[in-house]
Amino acid sequence: MRAAITLDPASATPLQRQIYDEWRRGILTGRFRGGDRVPSTRDLARTLGVSRATATAAYEQLIAEGYLEAARGSGTFVSRELPDDLLRAGRGRARPAAAPPVSAEPRDSGGWVRFSSQWRPDLKEFPFALWRRLLNRHLRGRRADLFDYCAIDGGYPPLREEIAAYVARSRAVECGAGQVIVVNGSQQALDLCARLLMQAGDPVAMENPGYQGARRIFEARGVRLLPVRIDASGIAVSEIPAGARAVYVTPSHQFPTGVSMTVARRLELIEWARRNEAWIVEDDYDSEYRYSGPPLPAMQGLAAGAPVIYVGTFSKVMFPGLRIGYLIAPRKLVPAFVRAKWLVDRQTPYLEQAALADFLREGHLERHIRRTRRIYGRRRAVLTESLTRHFGDGARCVGDAAGMHVLVRFLDPEVAARAAARRVELASSALYYMGKAPEDEFVFGFAAVGERSIREGVRRLAR
Amino acid sequence: MRAAITLDPASATPLQRQIYDEWRRGILTGRFRGGDRVPSTRDLARTLGVSRATATAAYEQLIAEGYLEAARGSGTFVSRELPDDLLRAGRGRARPAAAPPVSAEPRDSGGWVRFSSQWRPDLKEFPFALWRRLLNRHLRGRRADLFDYCAIDGGYPPLREEIAAYVARSRAVECGAGQVIVVNGSQQALDLCARLLMQAGDPVAMENPGYQGARRIFEARGVRLLPVRIDASGIAVSEIPAGARAVYVTPSHQFPTGVSMTVARRLELIEWARRNEAWIVEDDYDSEYRYSGPPLPAMQGLAAGAPVIYVGTFSKVMFPGLRIGYLIAPRKLVPAFVRAKWLVDRQTPYLEQAALADFLREGHLERHIRRTRRIYGRRRAVLTESLTRHFGDGARCVGDAAGMHVLVRFLDPEVAARAAARRVELASSALYYMGKAPEDEFVFGFAAVGERSIREGVRRLAR
Repeated sequence: MRAAITLDPASATPLQRQIYDEWRRGILTGRFRGGDRVPSTRDLARTLGVSRATATAAYEQLIAEGYLEAARGSGTFVSRELPDDLLRAGRGRARPAAAPPVSAEPRDSGGWVRFSSQWRPDLKEFPFALWRRLLNRHLRGRRADLFDYCAIDGGYPPLREEIAAYVARSRAVECGAGQVIVVNGSQQALDLCARLLMQAGDPVAMENPGYQGARRIFEARGVRLLPVRIDASGIAVSEIPAGARAVYVTPSHQFPTGVSMTVARRLELIEWARRNEAWIVEDDYDSEYRYSGPPLPAMQGLAAGAPVIYVGTFSKVMFPGLRIGYLIAPRKLVPAFVRAKWLVDRQTPYLEQAALADFLREGHLERHIRRTRRIYGRRRAVLTESLTRHFGDGARCVGDAAGMHVLVRFLDPEVAARAAARRVELASSALYYMGKAPEDEFVFGFAAVGERSIREGVRRLAR
Repeated sequence: MRAAITLDPASATPLQRQIYDEWRRGILTGRFRGGDRVPSTRDLARTLGVSRATATAAYEQLIAEGYLEAARGSGTFVSRELPDDLLRAGRGRARPAAAPPVSAEPRDSGGWVRFSSQWRPDLKEFPFALWRRLLNRHLRGRRADLFDYCAIDGGYPPLREEIAAYVARSRAVECGAGQVIVVNGSQQALDLCARLLMQAGDPVAMENPGYQGARRIFEARGVRLLPVRIDASGIAVSEIPAGARAVYVTPSHQFPTGVSMTVARRLELIEWARRNEAWIVEDDYDSEYRYSGPPLPAMQGLAAGAPVIYVGTFSKVMFPGLRIGYLIAPRKLVPAFVRAKWLVDRQTPYLEQAALADFLREGHLERHIRRTRRIYGRRRAVLTESLTRHFGDGARCVGDAAGMHVLVRFLDPEVAARAAARRVELASSALYYMGKAPEDEFVFGFAAVGERSIREGVRRLAR
């Protein structure tokens, strides 16, 4: 297959992005078809007159997003199942070829359907046998450095390298490995941010509604929280009080509304932070899961030197019990974050960090994300479809087709009562509001609930 | 072998302790000899007219301390190597029988002898193959609760049970499993104490010299530190300012001096804390390693309802990379500690907690401690002997025969210079002093240094 695409060297769009865009468009329009073998990066680079690194980076992005698939030893191919198909997957379109992986339905937990699992990935889908193999590789190696006190740095060096490469290709985060601080999940990252960037009494802005884990750790620091409204474009930057020392946001998939912050709003927030000498804490907790179009790039990489601390986690894309997350700090803050992590609990266990570095380097993470993205995408479609079927306009799903939960507003005030009576566990959104919360608004977790259970659960909620 | 011992039911000493005392005395005086089989707990209970639980508890304590040894399936025996022998081990006494386990000498690290390893156990002695087996048992089990978010409690319930039983029998700590909070090593326990028990500006007393990890985390909380002198009986309680809100101590083996706090001084400190409504943070970091006599019981269990937060760790008795420690909180503080742990990083990984619960329940921990106690005891004896041989009265070893380090004061001011010139890594004690520090005082870590290296290192320091 020839790469019949042309690049514009004079464009402001980087060459890597142009290659990515052309390939994606070609795949989506059917010009390049599922199963087609694509040129090697070497051939592509030669044909287009770009560096091999540029071609490789474009392919890695396409692979990360599921447009291409690399088969060990036999080249790279256009995927037979495309991420953009997922939007249509639930709408009755026949899918005879490339049967989707079928996941087992969750066991009947005493007949309950639990939509309250808004934080949970489906553990049945995780390749634990592989994970065990990777852990055993390092347990057998018995390298003393995995079991002893480590040097005071930001984590196991090979994992820092892998994380930096991963966030660069999947999230457009700009950083070197030295800026990565490995922590015990994103909650510890938020604690370190509170310790370093906030003093007791400081005004700190956050989204309202917003993630209560962030709110509580900031409150524990003694800051004065300033709730800021969310609109369709994300946090209302114009309403952030000028004195705020920091602002906490979830721009890629706002928790809990699911709204994505527009690029214009992101730039406005960065500009606001620069003007006010404030820090932005960007919590990118589940951005790997988008079911329509490519992932939005992170704010962190949007403007050079943006005053952003980027927070990521493996709890959603792997499993929560792993307890590994990371933050990407601006260079000048790195020594302070490294010391703060050492101060609070020395180090995140190196054994798991070593296994995780292999999991990333060998491509297992991106394979697992592609696979679960298809599964969760279908579950989300089943959920929204079922709500429409049973409630029509009486149930409004807020936010983008993304993540592991949907915020749903019901017109019917009896939904909560019926849920309790009919064994459906619902999580009210009230916990996430500072001040008055709307009634009859719920956070539906769908990632860990099978399709049949989703249909059944929604049916029970209906009158 | 008959248990020719008598108990006094009228005594204030509990029956369990009377059995323990009689057995220990019988063993030390040679009445019961190494290799002798002891009666079953059932027979002992019947002979003495006590409950089986009492007999079992006494045996467990004797096993924990190395006086008895249980052989799977063939009963319990008097140990051939007694803990109390260790004091004499280095003094030229012939030990023809029961050859001690020989540990490999550390690899020649470019010819350096590193006495600066004061925090480190000898990882070569840890049974990693066994540990791998325990981890795999739970990895294969794939119980979802080990890999998901856990309930908001103080850790994996079976581990809390095992820790409560372990500290009861080995440290005389009085607690239920519900008082155990599992954390990522003792440093996190200290952070939680700082968060819950101290406010910015609070006066907080601590030993001087003392553990700098505690000092730094308390300073990060913004407290006003009050250094208090150590004398031969431990912290000088009469010099603690009355306003102190909390006091941090290492009573079983003061860091770094190695002094043990006398029982009288412990009671004085508890009384002081009660009078002043202050908290005592008892850091029992390496108390499992005592080479003369049985371990001193912890302060926590010395007086009913003492206002003590007890802190322990598996970093010294297992390996530091495990990152598991624990605190034992007074009942009324338990809910606050559970919430604080959840707030800072949710949970310590359950997989390791499950393997660790098995490691304790199946007796591996106590076996490993008995074994390393012999090894470290010999290393300590070799160190103090070598210092005496080369320096005579010019090197003074401070503190008890315990732990993993010795504080050494030299009269010769040239020791540090010779150390650097002759490739001996020494850790000055200056880091641990608030205010003026003595010169020519060093913390010698011996646990991770082989006997030959210890001899060679001390020889190089000599003129």
